Amino acid sequence: MAGLGVGLIGTGYMGKCHALAWNSVASVFGDVERPRLVALAEIDADLAARKAAELGFATSTGNWRDLIADPAVDIISVTTPNAFHAEMAIAALEAGKHVWCEKPMAPLLADAERMQAAAKRSRKLAAMGYNYIQNPMIRHIKALIAEGAIGTVNHVRVEMDEDFMADPNALFYWKSEAASGYGALDDFAVHPLSLLFMLFGHVDAVIADMVKPYSERPLAGGGSRGVENHDVASVLMRLQGGVSAVLMANRSAWGRKGRIALQIFGSEGSILFDQERMNEFELYQNKDGKAEQGFRRVLAAPEHAPYNRFIPAPGHGLGFNDLKIIECRELISAIKGEKAHLIGFDDGLRIERSVHAMARSFAERRWVSVET
Amino acid sequence: MAGLGVGLIGTGYMGKCHALAWNSVASVFGDVERPRLVALAEIDADLAARKAAELGFATSTGNWRDLIADPAVDIISVTTPNAFHAEMAIAALEAGKHVWCEKPMAPLLADAERMQAAAKRSRKLAAMGYNYIQNPMIRHIKALIAEGAIGTVNHVRVEMDEDFMADPNALFYWKSEAASGYGALDDFAVHPLSLLFMLFGHVDAVIADMVKPYSERPLAGGGSRGVENHDVASVLMRLQGGVSAVLMANRSAWGRKGRIALQIFGSEGSILFDQERMNEFELYQNKDGKAEQGFRRVLAAPEHAPYNRFIPAPGHGLGFNDLKIIECRELISAIKGEKAHLIGFDDGLRIERSVHAMARSFAERRWVSVET
Amino acid sequence: MAGLGVGLIGTGYMGKCHALAWNSVASVFGDVERPRLVALAEIDADLAARKAAELGFATSTGNWRDLIADPAVDIISVTTPNAFHAEMAIAALEAGKHVWCEKPMAPLLADAERMQAAAKRSRKLAAMGYNYIQNPMIRHIKALIAEGAIGTVNHVRVEMDEDFMADPNALFYWKSEAASGYGALDDFAVHPLSLLFMLFGHVDAVIADMVKPYSERPLAGGGSRGVENHDVASVLMRLQGGVSAVLMANRSAWGRKGRIALQIFGSEGSILFDQERMNEFELYQNKDGKAEQGFRRVLAAPEHAPYNRFIPAPGHGLGFNDLKIIECRELISAIKGEKAHLIGFDDGLRIERSVHAMARSFAERRWVSVET
Amino acid sequence: MAGLGVGLIGTGYMGKCHALAWNSVASVFGDVERPRLVALAEIDADLAARKAAELGFATSTGNWRDLIADPAVDIISVTTPNAFHAEMAIAALEAGKHVWCEKPMAPLLADAERMQAAAKRSRKLAAMGYNYIQNPMIRHIKALIAEGAIGTVNHVRVEMDEDFMADPNALFYWKSEAASGYGALDDFAVHPLSLLFMLFGHVDAVIADMVKPYSERPLAGGGSRGVENHDVASVLMRLQGGVSAVLMANRSAWGRKGRIALQIFGSEGSILFDQERMNEFELYQNKDGKAEQGFRRVLAAPEHAPYNRFIPAPGHGLGFNDLKIIECRELISAIKGEKAHLIGFDDGLRIERSVHAMARSFAERRWVSVET
Repeated sequence: MAGLGVGLIGTGYMGKCHALAWNSVASVFGDVERPRLVALAEIDADLAARKAAELGFATSTGNWRDLIADPAVDIISVTTPNAFHAEMAIAALEAGKHVWCEKPMAPLLADAERMQAAAKRSRKLAAMGYNYIQNPMIRHIKALIAEGAIGTVNHVRVEMDEDFMADPNALFYWKSEAASGYGALDDFAVHPLSLLFMLFGHVDAVIADMVKPYSERPLAGGGSRGVENHDVASVLMRLQGGVSAVLMANRSAWGRKGRIALQIFGSEGSILFDQERMNEFELYQNKDGKAEQGFRRVLAAPEHAPYNRFIPAPGHGLGFNDLKIIECRELISAIKGEKAHLIGFDDGLRIERSVHAMARSFAERRWVSVET
Repeated sequence: MAGLGVGLIGTGYMGKCHALAWNSVASVFGDVERPRLVALAEIDADLAARKAAELGFATSTGNWRDLIADPAVDIISVTTPNAFHAEMAIAALEAGKHVWCEKPMAPLLADAERMQAAAKRSRKLAAMGYNYIQNPMIRHIKALIAEGAIGTVNHVRVEMDEDFMADPNALFYWKSEAASGYGALDDFAVHPLSLLFMLFGHVDAVIADMVKPYSERPLAGGGSRGVENHDVASVLMRLQGGVSAVLMANRSAWGRKGRIALQIFGSEGSILFDQERMNEFELYQNKDGKAEQGFRRVLAAPEHAPYNRFIPAPGHGLGFNDLKIIECRELISAIKGEKAHLIGFDDGLRIERSVHAMARSFAERRWVSVET
Repeated sequence: MAGLGVGLIGTGYMGKCHALAWNSVASVFGDVERPRLVALAEIDADLAARKAAELGFATSTGNWRDLIADPAVDIISVTTPNAFHAEMAIAALEAGKHVWCEKPMAPLLADAERMQAAAKRSRKLAAMGYNYIQNPMIRHIKALIAEGAIGTVNHVRVEMDEDFMADPNALFYWKSEAASGYGALDDFAVHPLSLLFMLFGHVDAVIADMVKPYSERPLAGGGSRGVENHDVASVLMRLQGGVSAVLMANRSAWGRKGRIALQIFGSEGSILFDQERMNEFELYQNKDGKAEQGFRRVLAAPEHAPYNRFIPAPGHGLGFNDLKIIECRELISAIKGEKAHLIGFDDGLRIERSVHAMARSFAERRWVSVET
Repeated sequence: MAGLGVGLIGTGYMGKCHALAWNSVASVFGDVERPRLVALAEIDADLAARKAAELGFATSTGNWRDLIADPAVDIISVTTPNAFHAEMAIAALEAGKHVWCEKPMAPLLADAERMQAAAKRSRKLAAMGYNYIQNPMIRHIKALIAEGAIGTVNHVRVEMDEDFMADPNALFYWKSEAASGYGALDDFAVHPLSLLFMLFGHVDAVIADMVKPYSERPLAGGGSRGVENHDVASVLMRLQGGVSAVLMANRSAWGRKGRIALQIFGSEGSILFDQERMNEFELYQNKDGKAEQGFRRVLAAPEHAPYNRFIPAPGHGLGFNDLKIIECRELISAIKGEKAHLIGFDDGLRIERSVHAMARSFAERRWVSVET
């Protein structure tokens, strides 16, 4: 068969990341048909034309519905702002296209539910862009846990911290509006939730606390405006099977740039990981000799598939964009009907339900169970 | 005046640590009278005699009340198991002795309250052995926060983890009995609480979750016994002044040996510290140039008093036992009526109230305010 | 103008790396014509055809000279074993093609000299594949040194260590033959030399010591064969301008996977870097406050161009293959006649002269000046 | 028998360190007679009296020969500037006292030789103060190597760096005079040499390079003075048994405070250590599973004797001064005729011979064998 026909909507941070992945996946893996970069949609036709030239798409349009209508397009990458995901993804699915949608699904739970329903009806692939689960280190950690390398897991902590909201003197912008969501919780806490899901399953019950480091932010024209959501969130959780977990998210954490730090404690050892040093993880096993026990810093290596598809030597390092190439390859597997390491709209919805439960637990100052 | 006359009750882990501190404080600091190591009490006279010889005490006894009665004794170090603290500390205070009592005050809140009342009546020094607050790194962090080096603090995380309860095959012993306390919470979460108090003030409200990694533990003679308290505790907190904090304690954390990790986030920077690397801390300041911002690893140096009393060169490192020597020096200051960096029975009681509030919040699955 | 027509010879580790770079450079940078992947040559036509399909080349051949003759080809990537570089690069240059040749130039100095002469005659671009110099961290370190961030540099140490020759039980193979070169010195010490050159200029004088960790290695059929070159090399050096340097290379260093560690000492600060953690460097400046001085761990960020072309957010990390994309972009600049950050055959030859001087200094047990 | 009678000459950095050790050794170890702190000598009687009071010595004197003559003194701690070591140590040995002398023996080789001869004649203990060899981490590394944990060692690197001479604006003082010695080489390179000796035996042959980061330094009254020795030294070495080693010393290394970094490469693994984090070492063993191989960070623990004498729990950390207490305990063992982990005047002399050989190799720009 010829390669998949790709349509891309949006060319921001994630749009470019999708484009790079579609462009490289065949060369990196060497075992799939080269995708055809058919058409790109942007907010206006000029921008779309310029971006199509830059990113290697054959055609461009200022109207994303053109992509939905294009028979040469097999799959649509949805990388627009979150508020547009539902409309686009549902339209694509209903037109018989596969969908690769950036996280989160949608600001409103009802929209996410409609997306999931559309996916179910369509029988097409509907996958979320949770790229951190694709890190070979995370995939190997999953395998280690499965094979009992640290015994039975009993406690987990995960932190996600960046500092893009840390400056109190930065002007008020839409990320501080209530309409954009709860703040740290849905802005990026969904990433650590995707990791927890992949490693341990879904969340059962939660209680969250949230704070506003800065109650007001300056306006461009002078004066200030009240901040409407929370840059810091901390959550106690119980996961499927009873594992206790703590989730911490802070988008005002000076000095943190892309921290997603996992601490996993088991009955026979522990595992540590931090996305800021994404090419290593640490493993402690109590079976090591008493006087030589310690956390082992393991560097990414060809033994940690699919690192080997990128580089044949250990310790040379993958980058953030490489994770998207791996995700793209998984997508192709899934479309072929093979087992894939992906988060579809079903599990994506469950992740978003847990976020909404957290917000409710904060509002009501009590433990809340996550709807299944 | 001649040096303080010292009586020591108990010669375990902390008893020896007190003895070493009393023995070295004058030589290290060079500005106080040499304490007189007058008398040592242990559970029986033989052990007491042997330990007195080892640790350099002039006399010994199998009856701790002999120390209370000894006019040559000015201060009593109480380092026995927690259940004995109240009786000994109160007797000493009532006999007009100063008291240096290991943490926590007592398993029962009522006992802690009686201790605090006795201290108040006695007008003698009644200080807790919260040695981690004495680390020059912690003292410097306190000074940095006070002078605004990281702006206004808005969020704090603290973890205290060790692995002495991590082995599921280890035999049941008293630390798993309900009579010994709540488990991780009072067994060592009081240490991070002492740090939070010193840096930010007291705890206002809490909600805790706790888990038992192992519901049963083997018995020596075969069979097993149910574990009665919790080795893992996680707590959401609000501190005085509104700072939000997360406290995590795990005494079953394989690979952690003496971790007390602080993450302090402010409006202009962040500070990190981990007691496992007690001679360094990390400082991030947003005033550094954009392309050269990063966490600065600062090594302990003579500029961080009283490190300079131990070593005149930077980066050579203090040890755990040195913290007790510093604490001992603070004690002597306090007895002289000088300002000292110590936690007395008043603040100690408040710390214990917050522990009991945590336990209650877990039992009742709700936020609990800490009684003042 | 249309994009460059690319011919690729060789599809091993570096061949694939070149292919990925040619494939992605336009999409990543968005400011260059998309290269045309014209033709690929491999050792036989079948392999060539398969690899062309995988890597996205339009045509393929079992005879590399076909690429030289192809008018649609503007530039040749030479990624074959070192012994073939001279013949291919010279043929390409003489046919009026630009050349991008993997390091080192050639095992024999005379061949490297012929390559440099051919480049000079051709007036075409002749660039070496020294990808580590392209790391945005290295490029920023160069800028920091130039602007005096650490004052005058007076001493440098660089280590390059991997463990692919560390196993004494691994079978003898060609890397242990004298015909393959000196061992650690030319096998990879040229990489740290490329960094030293970019940061400080060329090497003036050297004295080296070399050792064989294992004097013999087993043969497949039984018995063993004497090792003919040295897996460990250590070199004292003086650089242009009098800076003293130590170069250490060990390809039998268990646990090291891609370590290229720099320590740069100046009159006002120091800089540290390690390629195993390629997305960070450490900076110490004596202008920081006395009690807060420390090495600052700086994470790669958009401020460190051209990181921003890959990712708009800090701390997310580039990978090893991304360095080749940057190198490819520099190549395109150089071909356009713009200033580029590259090592051409002139400087490449000088690097190889310093390697041969090291080998001679070891053989003659004396300091040797590097021929200019 | 009663405890040793101690005389201390000098009360600077190391003098105080000896005093603290003598004062604590019995309490820490609990298995030796408590030393009697008999007499202290300083440059004048007033200072001596004041220091004796501070450090707990019974008597004091402004004339060090009084200590030599005092029958109550069994052992003399010599902690004066290096130029005085020979006279004092020889007088003490000839008077039948044991001697504990700070490193190095003496600036002039002839003096060191006289010291060694005096020690030999006296049949008393004559031990050097090489405290870093006492670190339980170093002692455990020695044991690991001996038991083959990393196979046969083939290559070693050691760095010793501090920054007390790093400031070019600091005034000229005696450490930059030729009379004080070679600079970095004897000022502190003897410390890493003591570690190499303990772990691998003596040095056979050397070639050194040395540099002056600053050729002149300012004088207090204005103007400047030429620097007469070298703050940076780098040495290629061959050790007993053929192991190759690189020794690097830099006392102008901004940001380094007490770095003594070891990298030990063997046929089955590697070991790393850095004195700046003196309570840990790293171990890599190729016998670990391929996908989980990594450097294991091992924290100091009771399993690493005699850490257990200080603290019964792992990971709590010893300090620099604790190393001297361990050294003191070894001394007492040696005096009792038991096997001890110490460097006596014989091996101390051999270390100093290797330093002088390094200086000569630099002057003559050639490899020099160390006299045995």
